[in-house]
This record gives sequence, C-alpha cells and structure tokens, in this order.
Amino acid sequence: MFSETVELRGHIIDSLILPKVLDEILRAGGTFKIHQIKIGQQRVDQSFARIEVSGPTHETLDELVLRLRQHGAEVVEKADVQLASAPADGVFPANFYVTTNQQTFITLDGKEIEVRPAIMDSAIAVDSASQRATAVKFYEVRKGVKIVVGHQGIRVAPIQRSTARTEVFEFMSNVSIEQPKSAVIREMAREFKRARETGGKILVVTGPAVVHTGGAEHLERLIEWGYVDLLFAGNALAMRDIENVLFGQPRRMNLDRGSLDDEGHENHIRAINAMREAGSIARAVEIGVLQRGIMCSCVRHGVEFVLAGSIRDDGPLPDVITDAIEAQKAMREKITGVTIALMMGTMLHSLAVENLLPANVKTFCIDINPVSVSKLTERGRFQAVGLVTDVEAFLRELTDCLVKLDATTARDGAKT
Amino acid sequence: MFSETVELRGHIIDSLILPKVLDEILRAGGTFKIHQIKIGQQRVDQSFARIEVSGPTHETLDELVLRLRQHGAEVVEKADVQLASAPADGVFPANFYVTTNQQTFITLDGKEIEVRPAIMDSAIAVDSASQRATAVKFYEVRKGVKIVVGHQGIRVAPIQRSTARTEVFEFMSNVSIEQPKSAVIREMAREFKRARETGGKILVVTGPAVVHTGGAEHLERLIEWGYVDLLFAGNALAMRDIENVLFGQPRRMNLDRGSLDDEGHENHIRAINAMREAGSIARAVEIGVLQRGIMCSCVRHGVEFVLAGSIRDDGPLPDVITDAIEAQKAMREKITGVTIALMMGTMLHSLAVENLLPANVKTFCIDINPVSVSKLTERGRFQAVGLVTDVEAFLRELTDCLVKLDATTARDGAKT
Amino acid sequence: MFSETVELRGHIIDSLILPKVLDEILRAGGTFKIHQIKIGQQRVDQSFARIEVSGPTHETLDELVLRLRQHGAEVVEKADVQLASAPADGVFPANFYVTTNQQTFITLDGKEIEVRPAIMDSAIAVDSASQRATAVKFYEVRKGVKIVVGHQGIRVAPIQRSTARTEVFEFMSNVSIEQPKSAVIREMAREFKRARETGGKILVVTGPAVVHTGGAEHLERLIEWGYVDLLFAGNALAMRDIENVLFGQPRRMNLDRGSLDDEGHENHIRAINAMREAGSIARAVEIGVLQRGIMCSCVRHGVEFVLAGSIRDDGPLPDVITDAIEAQKAMREKITGVTIALMMGTMLHSLAVENLLPANVKTFCIDINPVSVSKLTERGRFQAVGLVTDVEAFLRELTDCLVKLDATTARDGAKT
Amino acid sequence: MFSETVELRGHIIDSLILPKVLDEILRAGGTFKIHQIKIGQQRVDQSFARIEVSGPTHETLDELVLRLRQHGAEVVEKADVQLASAPADGVFPANFYVTTNQQTFITLDGKEIEVRPAIMDSAIAVDSASQRATAVKFYEVRKGVKIVVGHQGIRVAPIQRSTARTEVFEFMSNVSIEQPKSAVIREMAREFKRARETGGKILVVTGPAVVHTGGAEHLERLIEWGYVDLLFAGNALAMRDIENVLFGQPRRMNLDRGSLDDEGHENHIRAINAMREAGSIARAVEIGVLQRGIMCSCVRHGVEFVLAGSIRDDGPLPDVITDAIEAQKAMREKITGVTIALMMGTMLHSLAVENLLPANVKTFCIDINPVSVSKLTERGRFQAVGLVTDVEAFLRELTDCLVKLDATTARDGAKT
Repeated sequence: MFSETVELRGHIIDSLILPKVLDEILRAGGTFKIHQIKIGQQRVDQSFARIEVSGPTHETLDELVLRLRQHGAEVVEKADVQLASAPADGVFPANFYVTTNQQTFITLDGKEIEVRPAIMDSAIAVDSASQRATAVKFYEVRKGVKIVVGHQGIRVAPIQRSTARTEVFEFMSNVSIEQPKSAVIREMAREFKRARETGGKILVVTGPAVVHTGGAEHLERLIEWGYVDLLFAGNALAMRDIENVLFGQPRRMNLDRGSLDDEGHENHIRAINAMREAGSIARAVEIGVLQRGIMCSCVRHGVEFVLAGSIRDDGPLPDVITDAIEAQKAMREKITGVTIALMMGTMLHSLAVENLLPANVKTFCIDINPVSVSKLTERGRFQAVGLVTDVEAFLRELTDCLVKLDATTARDGAKT
Repeated sequence: MFSETVELRGHIIDSLILPKVLDEILRAGGTFKIHQIKIGQQRVDQSFARIEVSGPTHETLDELVLRLRQHGAEVVEKADVQLASAPADGVFPANFYVTTNQQTFITLDGKEIEVRPAIMDSAIAVDSASQRATAVKFYEVRKGVKIVVGHQGIRVAPIQRSTARTEVFEFMSNVSIEQPKSAVIREMAREFKRARETGGKILVVTGPAVVHTGGAEHLERLIEWGYVDLLFAGNALAMRDIENVLFGQPRRMNLDRGSLDDEGHENHIRAINAMREAGSIARAVEIGVLQRGIMCSCVRHGVEFVLAGSIRDDGPLPDVITDAIEAQKAMREKITGVTIALMMGTMLHSLAVENLLPANVKTFCIDINPVSVSKLTERGRFQAVGLVTDVEAFLRELTDCLVKLDATTARDGAKT
Repeated sequence: MFSETVELRGHIIDSLILPKVLDEILRAGGTFKIHQIKIGQQRVDQSFARIEVSGPTHETLDELVLRLRQHGAEVVEKADVQLASAPADGVFPANFYVTTNQQTFITLDGKEIEVRPAIMDSAIAVDSASQRATAVKFYEVRKGVKIVVGHQGIRVAPIQRSTARTEVFEFMSNVSIEQPKSAVIREMAREFKRARETGGKILVVTGPAVVHTGGAEHLERLIEWGYVDLLFAGNALAMRDIENVLFGQPRRMNLDRGSLDDEGHENHIRAINAMREAGSIARAVEIGVLQRGIMCSCVRHGVEFVLAGSIRDDGPLPDVITDAIEAQKAMREKITGVTIALMMGTMLHSLAVENLLPANVKTFCIDINPVSVSKLTERGRFQAVGLVTDVEAFLRELTDCLVKLDATTARDGAKT
Repeated sequence: MFSETVELRGHIIDSLILPKVLDEILRAGGTFKIHQIKIGQQRVDQSFARIEVSGPTHETLDELVLRLRQHGAEVVEKADVQLASAPADGVFPANFYVTTNQQTFITLDGKEIEVRPAIMDSAIAVDSASQRATAVKFYEVRKGVKIVVGHQGIRVAPIQRSTARTEVFEFMSNVSIEQPKSAVIREMAREFKRARETGGKILVVTGPAVVHTGGAEHLERLIEWGYVDLLFAGNALAMRDIENVLFGQPRRMNLDRGSLDDEGHENHIRAINAMREAGSIARAVEIGVLQRGIMCSCVRHGVEFVLAGSIRDDGPLPDVITDAIEAQKAMREKITGVTIALMMGTMLHSLAVENLLPANVKTFCIDINPVSVSKLTERGRFQAVGLVTDVEAFLRELTDCLVKLDATTARDGAKT
C-alpha cells in the first residue's frame, strides 16, 4: 500500500469538495484516513482537512492524487514540478500536465509560481531563467521548450462558492423553462451596471438568432449605452445584421415549405458583396453604405469585434478571420480583463469562448434550446447562469431593467 | 372501371385544393379527366373544376371519393345520405361517417342541411322529423338513433385561405424559433381588440407555465381589461396560481438537484387545503382568503372557467371536474361563440380544446417547446398561428401592445 | 438564540447529506457547532455527526429543523408527534405535516412507528388505538380523524446512495443525448431479470409513442416473456395499439401539412367503436375481435392494466377510468410490491406514477425529449435513470439484451 | 401595365408549381391570364401552362419574373443573358444573378448552355470564347470576369416530384418523433445497396455524436463493407474517435455536475498530441499508434476524408484544414459524383454540405434534436429525408438491414 498526505482548505464542505474527494478515493479503490478536520463555524470561515490517501499501486496513487488536485487538494510534502522538453514544434512531451481553467500554481525551485493565463486544455511551459510559467496551446510550443510533466508540484485553487449573501446567482446555475426569469434578468442588469462602473469588461458572444428574433435593436442600444466592450461572433451574425439593414427582415411567411427559401434568398449574398466592395465593415460605415445595425454600432462606438469563420459560411464578409486557430488567437488577445460574458443563441461560439475564459468570469447563457443551456452551464462553473428563453425577449427585458436602474440611480442622486 | 364526377369550387388553386385532389386520385390508383377548368383571374375570384374520377373497383372509388370530400369535392349527382340505427347506447353502427371540424352539410330528402356543431371525430345523428343533423360523441348516442353511414350525400366546405390582404397571419402557420415575433404579437393584439369590439369571445387555455414563468400578472391584466371571456385549465394552473398568491413564488435556486424539491415542496398542498376548507375558489375570494391572482381575477370579473382533472393532480381543488368526459361536456357547453383561442404552455389541454373547436376559430399557440407548437399548428388549420417563445415574455409583449393600441385609438379619437 | 441538537447517520459524506445540512443551516441564517463527527473509513462504513443548530427565533429554528429532517436529521431529544383533528371531510387541520416519498417514522407514546405507505404529498393519519400511522390523501380523510401537525416527533430515513460496486447506475441519473446507452440498457436488462427471479414486480407506464415509433411488438414480447406485471397507460396508448392492430399503421407520408390528418383520420374512432361494441378489451380478445397487440397480450398473459382518462381523449375505450381520482386509487391499489417502474414516452403519466411510488423503487425513464427526462429524473431519486432516446430503439435493444442474457444463462447452466 | 408570357412544363400540378406561380403573381400585385393549360391525365404525363403575367411597373414585373423562374417558369421570348464585368477580385458586379442548387441554363448567342456545377448562392461566370458558364463563389472571381446580371436569358429546371411508385420516400420529408422508423431505414438500406451497385458515391457527414452515442463500431462496419466513399467531419469527430480508441470511452457517470468534466478530461488533448507526434492520422495508422476506429478504417479502406476546423477546436489534429474557405474548396473538389449524403448529429456541417450539393442528391438527416432535422429538411429538397432519433440506434438498425438485404440477395442468387 502506497500513501500520500493531502490537505484541503476553504469552503470544502459547502462547496462539496470534501465529499467529492472522499468519493474519488473510494472509487479509485483507495482508502483514506482523516487525520484532522476543522469545519468553519461561520459561512465565511474556511474549513480544513488533512487526509492520508492510500492506493494499491504507485500508479493508482499517482493518478488518484492527480485527480484530487483538480479539487484543490494539495500534497503536503512539496516537491518541484518535473519538466521535459517538447520533442517537436507543436508537440508536447509524453505525460504532459493538462491545465484546467482554475487558478494554478507550480512549485519551481521550492517557490510557488502562478501559471498564466488560467486557460484550460493547455500544457504549462516553464522558463526557469525568468521563473515564469505559461499555459500554452499546441501551436505555441516550440521544440525544446520545457513543459511540466506528471502532477508533482502542482496546486490548483478551485473557485469556491461565494459566501456573499447579496448574489442572487449564488445557488443558481440553470434557470429552467419553468421558472420566472425577471428576478434573474434584473440581477444581470445590476451586474452589467456594476461592471461598467468598476471597469470590468463585458464580452458579448452571439449567433444570428439575435437578428432573426428581432433583438438587434436592443443589442444596438446596449452598445450605445456602453455595456458592450467586445463582440465575438461569426460571419452569420454580421451577415444577417447587415442584410437586415440593407434589405429589411426577410419575409418568411409563406404558403408552404417549398417556397420558404425562395424569396429574398439572395439578399444575404448581396449584403456580403456590398461589404466586399467597400473593403471592410468599418469602411462601409465610413462611406455611408452601412448606416445602422449591430455591426455599425460597434464601429461607431469603438467596440472591438472578432468575426470567426466557419465551414458553413457564405462569402465571407471581408472582416472574417477564416482560419480557426488565427481566430482563437485573436479572441485570446482581447479577452484579458473580461469579467462578464453574455452568450446568446450560439452553442459553438459559446463553447469556444468558455474554453478561453478563466473560471472566475461570470457567464450568462441565453438560448431557447434547453439542451444548449445545460451544456453551457453544466461545466463546473459556479458563476454560470443559464436562461432558456427567446433571445429578443431576454434583450428587451434586460434593456428595460437597465433603463429603470438608471432612473432609480438618477432619482437617488437627485435626492442627495 | 367505375367513375363518378366531382366538382371543386373556390380558391382551389391558391388553397392547393386542386393539386391535392389530383394527387389523391393518382395515389389511390385512380385516373381523372378534367372536363372543365376555370381559374379565377383575380385574387378574389373563385375557380371551378369538374373532374371525372375513375377507380378499379367500386370500393376504391367510394373510399377515394370520401377522401376527396374532405377537400371539398362535391359529387355532382346528389343523393340522400344513408342512415343506420345505433346498435346500443354509446355505440355507433358499422361504417358510420366520422366528422371533421369543417362546415359540413348532408342531403336529406333532397335538401342540404348543415350539421351542427362543426366538431371533429363525431358521428352525425339525424332526426328526420325535425330535419336536424347533429354531430354526436359516443356518450351522446342512444340505441336506435339514426346515424349517417357511408359517405353519400355529404358535403364538406373546407376553410379556404383568406384573400384579404390585411391579415399578417395569412401565410403564417408556425412562427419558428428563428423569426421575429413582434409583428405577429402586434397583430394578435389587434385581433384581440377586434374580438372585444365585435362581441367575439376570447378563450384562454393555459398550463401552469404561465405562473412558473412569472406571467400571471400579465394574464390578470388581460382579464381585468376584458380580454378573457373563458378560461380552460387544469388543477395545476389554479393550484400554482393560488400557491403563488398565498405563499409566494417557490424558491428554486438550489445547491444541487437533491434539494430541488425540498424547500416549499408542501406549499401547493397547503394551498389546496385552504381552498377545500373554503369550499370553492369563488367562496375563498368572497371570504378574503384569496385576494389576488388569475383565479381571483376570474371570479371578480365574471370570467367563467372550467378546471379539468388529470391523473397527475394533487388534491384536487374543489372546483376541479375530475371526470374527463364531464369536463369535456362542460367545455363544449361554454365554447359557443368563441372566435379566438389563446393556448399557452399546455399541449394536452390545447389538443383537447382544438378537438372541440370548429375550423374557423383563430387559434394562437404559445409554447417554448417547438415540438408542441408544431403539433398544435400542423393540423390543417389555416387559422392557427404558433409562437415558440417563453410564455411570460409573450404575455408581457401582448399586454404592452394592447396598451399602445389603446393609446393610439384614444389619440385618434381625440383628434376627431 | 434558540438551539436544538440533531444527529445524522449513514453515508452522510458521499450522499452529500452533511454538506447539504450545513448549507441549509447557514442559508436559513442559523449557525452550527459540530459536537462530534466520525467519518467512515471504508465505503460501507457509516458516518455520524452530532450538530447543535441555532437560530434567531423559535420559528426560524422550527422551520429549519423541519427542513433538516428531510435530509434525515434526527432531533436528539425525542418527543411525541402533535395531533389535531381534521375539521371536515377532505380537509386537513392547519399546519399539517406533508409527507415525502421517503421512509418516515413518527414517535407516538415514546415509540417509533413507521408511516405506510411511503407516498408523497399526503398527511399522516394516526390511529392511537391500533398504534398505526397512515399516509392519507385528501379524499381519504374524514372529519375528526387525528392528523399529525408541526414537525415534532417525525424522522425521515432518506435513501442513501448504494455502496454496492456492481451497480452501473450508482452515479448515473440522467444519461444525456451524448452518451452511449448500450451499457445502461444492458444493466437495465439485468435488473429486469433479477426482478423476475426474485419476485419483484415490474410496472410499465407508457404513452402512445410506443405504438407510433413502431415499438409495440417489442413491448408485446416483454409481456410474453413475463417481464411486465402491471401496465399503467391512458386511453391514447390503448386506442393507438388497437387501431394499429385493426387498421394497420396510419400512413403519414404526405405531400404537405394540409393532408396530414386526412387519411385514416377516422380509424382510431372506429377502433374505439369496435371495443365499445364488444363491451371491454378483454371481451374483444375473447370473441376474437382483437387478436394481437399490447392490450391483447396483457389480456392473454394476465397482466393487470389501469387505463386512466384524460381531457384530450376520444371515446373513450370502455376500460378507461374517466375519473382522475378513481384512476389514482386504482393505481395505488395495484402498486404494492413494484420494484421497477419503466416509464416511456409520457411525462404526465410518469409524473403521476412517480407521485405514488416510494423512494426505493427503481425508475427508468425513456423519452426522446430531453426536457421530459430531466424533469422525471431530477426529483431527488438516487434510483432514477433517464435515457434520451427513441422508444422503439430502446425497446429493441432491451429485448435483444434479454435474449442474450438468457442465452448466456442457458449456456452457463448447460456447462454445469 | 407591363406583361410578359411565361411557360410552365412538367409535373406542375402535383409538384405544386402552378399554384405557387399563380400565388406569387397575385401577391406581387400582378395579374395573370392563363392562355393555355393542359393537365397530364396520367401520373407520368407532363402538364403545360402558358400564362401571361402583368405587373404595374417594369421593375415589379422584372422582379416577379425572376421569382417565377425559380419555379421553372420560362420566358417565351428568349433573349440572351446580360453580362457585366467583376469590378474587383472577389467582388461581383451590381445586380448579379444568384444561383440556386437547381439545374440552370443560360441563353448565350441564342443557344442554351448548362451552368455547372449546380451550386447555390453563387454567381455565373461566362466565358464567351469557350461558351462555358460556371457557378463561381466570391473567392473564385477575378476582376474583369464576365458575370451574369439581371434575370434575362436564365432558365431553372427544378427537381420535380418523382412519379416512380417504388420510392417510399416520395412523399416523405421529415419523419417526426412520433412515427415508426423501421420502414424508412429499410428503404435507406436499399438505397445504399443500389448506390454501391450502380457506382453512386455515398458521402457521410457526421459530428462527434456518432462516437458519444456508441455508434462508432457501426460506422466502421459501413466503411469496411464499402458503403462509405467520402467522410466530411470536423476536428471533434476525429478527436473523439481517436480518444475513444486510445483511452476508452470517457466515464461520465458521476456524482454531480461539478465533477462531470474532471475525469479523463485531458484524454482528448493527449489523443491530439499523439497524432501530432505521428504527423498525420494516416501515418499513425501506418506505425501502429492507431489500430481501430472510424478514422483508422477510413485510412485502411481508402475512404477520403475532409476534416474542417472550427473556432471551438482543441488542438487541432494534424489533418484538420483550419481555414474555412480552404475546407470548403476541399469538400467541393471531392463532391462530384455523390448521389447519397448521410448527415448525422451535426447541424453546422450538414448545412455547410447542403450548400454545396446539387438538388438531385438524396440527403438523409439523422439527429435527436427535432429542430435540427426540420431545419435540414425544410429547404425545399424533395429528396431530403429526416429522422429524429439517436444516432447509434439508427446506425445499428441500418447495418442490421444491410446484413439482412445481403442475406436475401445471396439466398435469391443461390436459388437460380
């Protein structure tokens, strides 16, 4: 029997960390001995447990401890991380450590260093000279770079459930079809205001549903009011928005299926041609070809956007980054400082962005498809809130709430 | 080869009746010869076709002609209907004619009589003495009553697509997830106003989703403004409404699944007990136990309601009709004069009501589940409009539209 | 500050009971002091905690302790339950205790008595003379009967997560769209065999989807092989099954929506008429009118069935219990001894049955709608397994698995 | 009033072309005069109509005639197409004609030339010297190339509903949740056999659901049996397939959401690393790193594949084409000769491929999400069949059917 002692700290009871850890041990065929347990008396108090974990083989124990680290378990005997060289450009060494989106630390020469950024599914490149640890994707690794292997010397600090009572979202993850959404949307509006006031960046990720459902005007207003710092979308969103502006909402009220796609089916192609002729969306705004809409508002209010290409795209628009890896890089560059991500009507893009975000970013997922919402919120984020509803209806209510909040603030301000 | 000549009249081209008829003939292995065809030159003009239909056997031809009648085909040689006696209470004679929800006529003693009401899946009972033809359900038939058998002497007048240009709904049946709903909801609001002004009755059929989603207050307002003449629902809707009023919205924001049902899980039982103690919902309003909510508004504004029981019910409330057939009867009695049926968040109840409505009632189906909406609107009604959206969001926008319409009317009135 | 000491016993860590309890306390504004905690070293070992709970008011504490009892917390100072008389037939006294589906005990004259049956949303009627405690529904209570009020003297023993390693289902609740189902179905087959061998009763609850999807033949085989002891369904299932046998599968492959309901739309009405003429389904089998199908198999193999009426029913069939409360009573009477409930393609009926089942019955929910499956499995049952898939495909694979299992058993038997 | 005479030919009645054309005219505010109408007496006979269309302005008439051409209307007075030069690389001239996926002809110097390929949302480039007309995408057009503008001289020959009685699919488009699928899958199997025997190419488009649902083994068998000529997928499918082979099916049966992604979450990253190390999937098969699975089978049986990148990709695998436009080109190059496209569990990829396919390719769409299936089959293809079911269950039944068909053929062969 091989054993190792691990420690857990924090809200390990109410964040369910302790039971998960014990469960992992038993399921892996291991046993445990709790040497010490101290449970916080107050909601804000931290708890502590020291547990001796045993497993039948060295490999089992290693694998198990690796898993416990995902829950924040820390091996008591600190050791330095183990490093190996990347065998080729774009290839990691065998047994490389795979990151999560949690805050992560490595021990190097006896000191703990934070790995930056907190991005999942990456390896950790270590530069001993500068004592820096960087999460790297495949395309960033060059032959010979030192990469962390195994799990020794790594500590993960998982987000623990907030203890602040003021947050409506605290215990909420997936607001189902059958629940009232007004309270949640009101709280989201407050978060938006708070972010704007405290300099937090708000990222909007959206699919074309925002246009199809008639919600574009509400999103434009959010942009005008300064509630959008960054827009990530695909060719389809921008194309439908521009088509809508140039040719009007496609009439779809038809006799039967057969003719559904016939009328106005070419307008989106003409919209693309107009932008290609202008050279870029910004240029089209400048020369007056594009005078309203989401993309136009972004240009006018200096909201940066990344339009990523997809295999299904027509055109595409001149601003679209057709290479997926280049688009990912562009998103990663701009993502720093984001504190709220509002994801609407696009599972693909939302999952793409979730993969890039650190665990502490608040994510609000809006989709009329309950399966998409579940998938987006069931990924272990304590901060994700999902709403199953129509995108237009959501945006209409969100903007209404923001107007009311501003009125209240103004009135309160006038009183003093 | 056996043949029979049928005639088609009306908007047989743009209502797709002609092609359907020809298609039916060919698919049944028959052949046709078009003796005369006259196609209306104007949208409002009627078209006409006389077609000789042939089939290999007498039975095939009979069956085929039966089917063509569903599309409005009229057999040129008029014959009287054939009658047979019901063999027992609650049992129809062999080969009885099954009604649709379309306007239907029978030829009796050479004269055409309309069958009333226009209700589907019934038999036609004929009283030769009074020359009346009545659509009857199983439970209405008594041994010996004369029932129409075969298909001879029956003419169906299917609803034809309206030719009025002003109706937004004309070509619309199922407004999918991906379309803007505002224009449709605005038009619905106009229909509501028109119905109220012209004495048309508005029926609301709703499931508990209207309460769960937080839409109860909007429905209350509709009731107060006189837009609801009749409410059909189940125990669940009334129970959730009353629970909501007496105990507040159930908190559902929980740590995990396990505890989802724990908190406040007993409130709905207590709400039922309170009503049972009062004796009825109306009495509970009278003695002040129930002071707001949908059911309370119904009582106060004289809106009749039918609450039907279901196998899944707790309680039930004292007003619930637990026997399904009795509940159907109660609904049928009150349904006369209804011109608009608004169905929200309940597939079972909506299907039940659709089965009772004549084909010319406008039905608006609102559900967040696209499958429910398809099922409700894909039943051959040219007048059904479906919206895939959140019930609360729909009601909020509908009431907003009604307020705006009233303001416009008032302003226009003031001008003159 | 008011306080009370509670004890927790069992798999309180890995069943998440301890963290839930602590969380409930903190959220209710209470505090706790853990006087003793003993965590089982082995998977099969029980854990123990003694916790002093404090709250600001007597009411808060009372309410909190009530909630903790739902998690199995036992108040150390045992007191007798409090009783009050029912004020009228069908009405419970104020503040009556509402049952869960967990095993429940009350203390009466210092002794613990089990409440039977373990059925949710009921009150507890106590007969002091016979020392019996019975869970009663509204319709069962008569004026003057003694009913438990408040929460004193009540102990709930929640189902705790099984510790047996052999169960695939252990950690599974909702098998989503994106997971392989074969392993789960194989395990279900094993459970079916086990139930048949050990005398456990298998209940099948099904909607008409089993017929629509073409799965009727598989269900018939399950009945023939003795895997179905009880069938709960509605008019629709029986009607579609009989229609299918008498007239064949409705052709639905049509040109367009308009004609979808035209062909064969009357067959279900004729099927009902045939049964009404026979007098009952059993009689129709006897006289040879009904010779195959699910209902016929039930009659031939002595499988009891309860057909409950619904507001949407055509007909109904002569065997249907049209009164919802009577149908509930009929189901309750037959449910004793059920150890497996297979629920397919009907949310309404499945929820109705779930409300009647004790917590320890294994429930398997099969539906192609992920929302239905979530709703059915997210009700705090550790024993519920949901599969999002086509009903026919599920039944085909289940019967295949049963055939293979029998072959294996036979081969193994032959070897020895 | 301006008028023009158009002619319709073919199955204009039962393909609903005539009513659609008349409807279009009326809705556009035009009027018509039917000069001649000849309706085929037999199912296989063609019909004919000559219609004079009038409109209030030249523009309205032009626009209307353009629309009628989409339905196959041919202008009687034949005129040459009008051409304009592309103003820049990647930009079409104003008023360019946008193609559909129907067979299309242009009149050039009085002669009709077919436009190739039949691909939608493209412009038509004309080379007068070689008398060739080519459908071109934005990226294919170079400054100065002659492009068709306006609608003069263009004829579209829409796919008309087949008149062959043997096709089960004839009237079927979207096989809903509630219908039996066995007959349809059997017919699909026959189409697969027919395609293999007659040299038609079968294209499979699939998402990772085929692996998640456990259907990979069935797809492998299809590949081995020669039923797959081409595979279009994304990084996710190949990654999950390879992960599954190298590390086994990810265990997902977990205690709660929090840990859902924890276990084995890194395996897909390791699978990618292994392929990157090998250099390509084919090389990994060659050196024995990858020994089974879908991708391995493709390599071994010479099935060409195109893996397209997406914004959401991890890695990606070395074979993935990360640029969307390059991936589209790669797919277009390989698509010639495809007669069946089987699309499973991926809406994005399926829509992408549908955009590339001519209208006469049979497409089978399998998805458990009814919304995806509707979207894929409601695009005016008479040849598209959709099934709402689990991908694994579908593939299991399809392969079973193919085995049975082969057995039947062998037996029949042995008899003779």
